[in-house]
Amino acid sequence: MGSNNRPDLFKMNLPYDLKKLSLPQCDQLCKQIRKLLITTVSKTGGHLSSSLGTVELTVAVHRVFDSPQDKIVWDVGHQAYTHKILTGRLNSFSTLRQEGGISGFCRPDESEHDAFVSGHSSNSVSAALGIATAMKLSGDDHHAIAIVGDGASSGGLFYEGLNNAGKSNTNIIVILNYNEMSISKNVGGMAKYLSTLRTREGYHKTKSAVERVLDKTPVIGSPVKKVIKGSKDAFKNALLHSTLFEDLGFAYIGPIDGHNIGELENGLNAAKALNKPVLVHVNTVKGKGYGPAEKNPGEFHGIGSFEITTGNPDVVASDSFSSVMGKELCDLARTNERICAITAAMKYGTGLQYFAKQFPDRFFDVGIAEEHAVTFCGGLASMKYIPVFAVYSTFLQRSYDEILHDLALSRAHAVICVDRAGIVGNDGETHQGIFDISFLSTIPGVRIYSPSNYSQLRACLRKAINDDDGIVAVRYPRGNEKNTFVEETASTTYSYTDHGSDILIVTYGRLSNNAVTASEILASHDIKCDLLRLVEIFPISDEIAQIMSKYQVVFFFEECYDYGSVSEKYSAVCDNIAPFTIDTFVRHGDCDTLLDELGFSPEKMAEHIEEFLTDEQT
Amino acid sequence: MGSNNRPDLFKMNLPYDLKKLSLPQCDQLCKQIRKLLITTVSKTGGHLSSSLGTVELTVAVHRVFDSPQDKIVWDVGHQAYTHKILTGRLNSFSTLRQEGGISGFCRPDESEHDAFVSGHSSNSVSAALGIATAMKLSGDDHHAIAIVGDGASSGGLFYEGLNNAGKSNTNIIVILNYNEMSISKNVGGMAKYLSTLRTREGYHKTKSAVERVLDKTPVIGSPVKKVIKGSKDAFKNALLHSTLFEDLGFAYIGPIDGHNIGELENGLNAAKALNKPVLVHVNTVKGKGYGPAEKNPGEFHGIGSFEITTGNPDVVASDSFSSVMGKELCDLARTNERICAITAAMKYGTGLQYFAKQFPDRFFDVGIAEEHAVTFCGGLASMKYIPVFAVYSTFLQRSYDEILHDLALSRAHAVICVDRAGIVGNDGETHQGIFDISFLSTIPGVRIYSPSNYSQLRACLRKAINDDDGIVAVRYPRGNEKNTFVEETASTTYSYTDHGSDILIVTYGRLSNNAVTASEILASHDIKCDLLRLVEIFPISDEIAQIMSKYQVVFFFEECYDYGSVSEKYSAVCDNIAPFTIDTFVRHGDCDTLLDELGFSPEKMAEHIEEFLTDEQT
Repeated sequence: MGSNNRPDLFKMNLPYDLKKLSLPQCDQLCKQIRKLLITTVSKTGGHLSSSLGTVELTVAVHRVFDSPQDKIVWDVGHQAYTHKILTGRLNSFSTLRQEGGISGFCRPDESEHDAFVSGHSSNSVSAALGIATAMKLSGDDHHAIAIVGDGASSGGLFYEGLNNAGKSNTNIIVILNYNEMSISKNVGGMAKYLSTLRTREGYHKTKSAVERVLDKTPVIGSPVKKVIKGSKDAFKNALLHSTLFEDLGFAYIGPIDGHNIGELENGLNAAKALNKPVLVHVNTVKGKGYGPAEKNPGEFHGIGSFEITTGNPDVVASDSFSSVMGKELCDLARTNERICAITAAMKYGTGLQYFAKQFPDRFFDVGIAEEHAVTFCGGLASMKYIPVFAVYSTFLQRSYDEILHDLALSRAHAVICVDRAGIVGNDGETHQGIFDISFLSTIPGVRIYSPSNYSQLRACLRKAINDDDGIVAVRYPRGNEKNTFVEETASTTYSYTDHGSDILIVTYGRLSNNAVTASEILASHDIKCDLLRLVEIFPISDEIAQIMSKYQVVFFFEECYDYGSVSEKYSAVCDNIAPFTIDTFVRHGDCDTLLDELGFSPEKMAEHIEEFLTDEQT
Repeated sequence: MGSNNRPDLFKMNLPYDLKKLSLPQCDQLCKQIRKLLITTVSKTGGHLSSSLGTVELTVAVHRVFDSPQDKIVWDVGHQAYTHKILTGRLNSFSTLRQEGGISGFCRPDESEHDAFVSGHSSNSVSAALGIATAMKLSGDDHHAIAIVGDGASSGGLFYEGLNNAGKSNTNIIVILNYNEMSISKNVGGMAKYLSTLRTREGYHKTKSAVERVLDKTPVIGSPVKKVIKGSKDAFKNALLHSTLFEDLGFAYIGPIDGHNIGELENGLNAAKALNKPVLVHVNTVKGKGYGPAEKNPGEFHGIGSFEITTGNPDVVASDSFSSVMGKELCDLARTNERICAITAAMKYGTGLQYFAKQFPDRFFDVGIAEEHAVTFCGGLASMKYIPVFAVYSTFLQRSYDEILHDLALSRAHAVICVDRAGIVGNDGETHQGIFDISFLSTIPGVRIYSPSNYSQLRACLRKAINDDDGIVAVRYPRGNEKNTFVEETASTTYSYTDHGSDILIVTYGRLSNNAVTASEILASHDIKCDLLRLVEIFPISDEIAQIMSKYQVVFFFEECYDYGSVSEKYSAVCDNIAPFTIDTFVRHGDCDTLLDELGFSPEKMAEHIEEFLTDEQT
């Protein structure tokens, strides 16, 4: 293709042909990519703003480096849609996050160009350092490149990675993509610091090491050196301030305009030529190129389908477990001034925006830092405040030791609102909330509620805050209640329907609704089942065990990994339990489809029970 | 007491009388404290070097601040012995770490002067921020003071804490005690950076904010200001470099000579006057005042009893599970160049010093950074290297999410050598290794071995590295093997002794030895027991379940928290198991005494079984 022809995304041999394009052609290609991103995500939902911000960066990375020999590790993966498009997933891109389609995050088993699993924040530098170290041991002089958004820079693992990478003597390049926003407005000293660096126009640090290498590298050296030395402020800046990253052992290049492919390539080529740990600081605009997303990057961070011309969501948000929790917490905080609310960068996702507005002094967004969040709760609790940490189930995994050491050991009273508990659907394997019961129940003194509807959630939250002591987890699923039954009063213990059957169905949380429907299906097939819907699921109770022991067989359904599940605990004291749990990681897909596949739809529940009973009889 | 009299540690009203002392008296007192530290730890064992380094710092902190209204949070607690002496534990200090005595770490239930639990590294800033925030919400203008050694500064939680504290607008003071050594020689960019700061003699940063406050505070202001401005290099340094801590939002004071009480007090008073987040950088000498410890601070970090004049340990170290692992790993690595060894600041503790010496390129000490260690292993494993992470059971808790997300999800092959599994004894509640089986077994694809002697350990390690796939944990206790039986071949599965009894004892790891002795005791009482000693303990096996199901009753002993234990898992499939596990946190004390108290000595095992059988008969 000539350097003047308009490239066609769909006719290129990607990512290899990228290197053949002229800069103007790259810009044309980026426009096509951006259009594809907007069109696709408007239908599939997904992480739009971050990916719109990294179109040029991704193109530049694939022009400068040779994937898959050079290993690109995307942090979280929110930013990696363009990477997917450029590495073999162009034609399947319309299936993004859909049932049977490609993942919304990076997965090595999806493409050899996805060097490492992404999903949980801040792991990219550590993973890339492992890869770069392996390369060094093998005598391979390729590069490992970690691409991190500033949101992930608040995570302790990012720092641990930097701290080890800086002194490592490997070919690791960390690209820090600064866009002033992570998921919500970024917080903390690091964010403020990066914002200061951002505003230093033309601060292209000239370390002597960089210069030495550039002098020896005539082809790429001269223009790069010119760019780097071009700034009239460079010398002054170098005198005034060395960056935090240099303090940690990195060569620092930046900040670079992340929407200028030429400047990006110069910076990345300089980084590549150094053959030592380099941090490349790139400034981008989140949502770049799509008005509504540029205007409200937070709203377009993770979104459902939307209408392209206006940016309006296809489905208007109604109440959800998250918003009900958030509003109830406000009610409680109005009369109890010792309640504090904590989030790790998920103010909107967890429904804490109401609390943040009404009680700004008692609201704390700690950034992506789940470990700190819990230990901070421990400090608050030691002063008799009541910390309420609202967090997604999957991210709470990172706080395991802190819950044990900084809360449980001192018998602190703290409430953990475990959002997105159970199957989450499209976000997939890295985000399923199927381990929280398993790991929380290994910590002495923990109590766990799993309400199935809004009124139970409110009651559990009230009890957890006002009546319970120790660590209390209230867990609830993503999305809305689907109530199939009416309760006179919202129980925080259990609801038991005794028809005098010798078969009992036990479950909790969202599946309580499915169990009601399942028992109706079974009734229509002349199989009468009693029903026990748990709300307080841990610690296990003698009362529950006694109820269960009356039955010939107990069918116990739970959206939980099998080891550590509630049914496993009851199975240790009752020998009539047939457990239905989850025995491995769960892929991404449509939530109802996944629940059905796992055997948790009302139909499948009924089917399993019928099959079991038939097998027993034969 | 007059300002010229020699103070008597044992006659003072502590910590309050400290404020009445002149500086020369303080120095005299410090000598007395140091002597007490050396004498006591020479008998009790403990963390000597760190505490010898912080004698003056502790005295200065208690002179400048008012504990317990001001809250002092010691990180890890290695450095806190002087604090214990000065806050009500002088007379009980000889019981340090002993059965029934005071803890080697800080415990709020031991003293109101221990503001927060210490034991696991790097949590102090986050906890102190919680406390400082609570103070601010209550209108309390006291200070929360986190005291952190540079070893803990490699932990991500420390960074998350700093990142949030720096912008917090609270009265938090972080005292960073730099002694160039954490447990072993410190590693990473941060350590190098701190070492650079250390060498800036007279770098007392004069921020305008400090000056403004000091100008308004005549009593303490003037001398402090003089000290701060005294350095001729101050202005130059201020121009050349702002510190990383200022980048994160802190006022920075230091470095201060940590053995000069006058200088310490000036710095701390300045920090106190600022009423904003301040980082005070203190330089100390680890082991200060005791020749052998100054010379070999690493050896005197955590030690057993020793002879004071020479510093020689009372018991010469023999082989241990740790050293056997370390040597075996060297044997394996000699013929397999893809094996890498990783430690988080525990090179000697985990027995990896042999590997480090023989294979320096494949050895990685990542500092106190267990999360990074695991994700780094994930990176290595993705390149087909075989990472072996040797780590204490209790510290592995911090890697839960990384094991799940960065190893298990991609089915990586990695070996985790879980040292100090089970009861560890004197280090106590924060350090007992009783949760690893519980949390590791909640992660899909994990295999766990628990060898009971050296030859089994060697066999398990070989199998884990050469034959198994996925995540393989090999766990073994602190200390030496106490073998009570001889095996023809070292099994990696189980050893089964079938005498035809209808009673079976099942256990694994160290308790296998106790079970052999217990069965002998029972035999002498005419109770014949069969014996099943497991080595591969997870996943559970049908073969094992079948053996167990033949018995009338199975007594299952394990040094493991009850939820998540192996017996719990088998109880879900066998209904004849009487489990003996651990149902809460375990205090510190003598290891054998604790095992006996928990029912795991051979005598108690036998007793429990006899009691159970008697109860059954009546």
